[in-house]
Amino acid sequence: MQFTLSYALEQDARDPLARFRDEFVIEDADMIYMDGNSLGRLPKRTVARLQTALTEEWGKRVVRGWNEGWYDLPQRLGAKIAPLIGAQPDEVIVADSTSVNFYKLVIAALDANATRHQIVTETVNFPTDSYILQGIVQARRDAYRLTCVSSEDGITIPTEKVVAAMDRKDCALVTLTHTAFKSGYVYDMRAVTQAAHEAGALVLWDLSHSVGSVPVQLNECDADLAVGCTYKYLNGGPGAPAFLYVRRDLQERLMNPIQGWFGQKNQFDMSFEYAPAAGMTRFLVGTPPILSLLAIEGGVDLLLEAGMERLREKSVKQTEYLIALWEHWLKPFGVTLNSPREARWRGSHVSLGHADALRIDRALIEEMNVIPDFRYPDNIRFGIAPIYTTFADIFHAMERMRRVLEEKLYEKYPTERPVVT
Amino acid sequence: MQFTLSYALEQDARDPLARFRDEFVIEDADMIYMDGNSLGRLPKRTVARLQTALTEEWGKRVVRGWNEGWYDLPQRLGAKIAPLIGAQPDEVIVADSTSVNFYKLVIAALDANATRHQIVTETVNFPTDSYILQGIVQARRDAYRLTCVSSEDGITIPTEKVVAAMDRKDCALVTLTHTAFKSGYVYDMRAVTQAAHEAGALVLWDLSHSVGSVPVQLNECDADLAVGCTYKYLNGGPGAPAFLYVRRDLQERLMNPIQGWFGQKNQFDMSFEYAPAAGMTRFLVGTPPILSLLAIEGGVDLLLEAGMERLREKSVKQTEYLIALWEHWLKPFGVTLNSPREARWRGSHVSLGHADALRIDRALIEEMNVIPDFRYPDNIRFGIAPIYTTFADIFHAMERMRRVLEEKLYEKYPTERPVVT
Repeated sequence: MQFTLSYALEQDARDPLARFRDEFVIEDADMIYMDGNSLGRLPKRTVARLQTALTEEWGKRVVRGWNEGWYDLPQRLGAKIAPLIGAQPDEVIVADSTSVNFYKLVIAALDANATRHQIVTETVNFPTDSYILQGIVQARRDAYRLTCVSSEDGITIPTEKVVAAMDRKDCALVTLTHTAFKSGYVYDMRAVTQAAHEAGALVLWDLSHSVGSVPVQLNECDADLAVGCTYKYLNGGPGAPAFLYVRRDLQERLMNPIQGWFGQKNQFDMSFEYAPAAGMTRFLVGTPPILSLLAIEGGVDLLLEAGMERLREKSVKQTEYLIALWEHWLKPFGVTLNSPREARWRGSHVSLGHADALRIDRALIEEMNVIPDFRYPDNIRFGIAPIYTTFADIFHAMERMRRVLEEKLYEKYPTERPVVT
Repeated sequence: MQFTLSYALEQDARDPLARFRDEFVIEDADMIYMDGNSLGRLPKRTVARLQTALTEEWGKRVVRGWNEGWYDLPQRLGAKIAPLIGAQPDEVIVADSTSVNFYKLVIAALDANATRHQIVTETVNFPTDSYILQGIVQARRDAYRLTCVSSEDGITIPTEKVVAAMDRKDCALVTLTHTAFKSGYVYDMRAVTQAAHEAGALVLWDLSHSVGSVPVQLNECDADLAVGCTYKYLNGGPGAPAFLYVRRDLQERLMNPIQGWFGQKNQFDMSFEYAPAAGMTRFLVGTPPILSLLAIEGGVDLLLEAGMERLREKSVKQTEYLIALWEHWLKPFGVTLNSPREARWRGSHVSLGHADALRIDRALIEEMNVIPDFRYPDNIRFGIAPIYTTFADIFHAMERMRRVLEEKLYEKYPTERPVVT
């Protein structure tokens, strides 16, 4: 029953969020797009918004655009994203890339907790977070130690293991990606945050693979700091600027290490001495890229309209459905489930493993018009963006992958990696 | 003769670059836009380029856009900007904001010249540069000293004075804005760079107010490092990402302090340990904002077609013309010339001073449809973008300012500052 297209179409017919798919530009109806966790689709309203930005704002008003809606975009977009992550409107701001924001908040946190010298993270964290931490530890001439908790199964890291790694006398910062980029494993934000606080550390969450698909309650969990990406489930466009969150009572204690003029108090006084602006504005640096910022709003509005609870409910149903199809059709070919089996520990993407994953991924794209993505060494990630992914998409993705395996359509592809997927 | 509209129109008729004005969106023919040094105008081809980016690339190809032209945009745009600043194509890359790039290169330079501890800059540098330097000195617990050369007339700083400030035993870095943001004063890049090298220091030039209007010869001057802005004379759009330059032989010696995944060697191996990519790529950090990057190319192409020599030639004629009109019409009202009188020391904007500058600026905008910008405390900047500014624009700007003064049209405006201009 579950293994027929009509079952999938029936689920779609009953989906209370079905109407949102029409809000996106989807021209090739045959293309099964399963990479919204890498780059979300283009909202139709974003096309219109950018057209206005060009012809009505930059084109007609030129520099006056700054006073007519551009200048406070970082704050305004932050306030819109806030309810998606359980934060207050004045605790979130949009600026720079996730990597740059992560750098700013790591240094700000270490300086605010200066008598302590341990940083806890994990080995399967997203590379940019690890690289930036390594750079900071090195720049501080190894006064800090980086404790990297490792995963035994490559999929999950139990909370106890993260907690056990915290040195209660010396832990300054715990930083984790809330939903792991490879396996989709979701940490227990409340438990980790509480343990970190008991150990005297601040916690910085990378929400890149959570925001817009996994409910996040930063305030309820008493989280200190967070960063996240807007081009995945928020559908903000390729490389769209990222957000950062600082709990309200910490904002005045933390200093941005990159003291740019957009973080300056009374910026247009252009005084010589730096004085940080109040609140989140101090975490801005340079002039923000307005066109890329404007492209963020449409996607965020759609998620707010859909509601995080309904999105999560649909996402769980859909990842469950994908796993059921995997078990029935793909497991017999030696495909492994590289994501947690239990929904409560799983985000909105599912990773499937196979020794020939790279070539299977290529065959899915080239032969089958299915777009997942590949993550070294043997993962194929299927991202489910509940705002536009249908049950039929999932059916076709799994059914076409079954054909790739059955007919060994991947064997003609080389084993070297593509530049980007 | 010079003081008639027909003279201005005659100059425009003879202008070999006149055809380029048609390449820009200019809807309000009466509006005299004199702020291209803050935000350049919208090139028509950029409207078309972004339309394609949305509907053909992000809309249709979604994540595959990365492999089909987005991924190497930072390098490709850098290579295009290189000839405008006298650099090689592999010495320039586009990424982040000017402020973030400035931060990266200051730290990289200090670390590469680690036995020395003096930084030389000047008090009327653009604020973001000063703020970032202050932050770095503070973060390094005052192991560094910041020597700020001051200007006696608020307009120029003689080369000798900058050179005299360099401690030959301890100077690590000299950093100046090539064309000063307030007065438009242009430093002698060759002389300052040579003196800095003799003193054992590296030199970092901020080219924000030069690139696209003042010829820059980074290679010929043996300049070490540079950053610059793409949203002024390059017409790249509000807050468009900035560029950075590192002389080829320094690239492998310098380390980016913000070690993000876009600066990683073999990025998509996603290995745990950071290893910097070769060449300029190591100075990237996070995922770049593609829409804002794509908007840069059209304006750069136009400047390349026009040619920097012809642009400078026209710019000099136009600033001379503006100064002649100022002398005839505005000086009698107590308006001062806050830019160098001699063309060789002057960039492409002219600052005019008046005790009531803020209110005059407001009256120009509100009553006269003239858009200059105001810089605290008493400067009105008139930016000349030779790619689209006409002699008639300059005629009208000065003639309308004369009317504002003659009829005291500014007196009804308040003396407090606007949020942004």
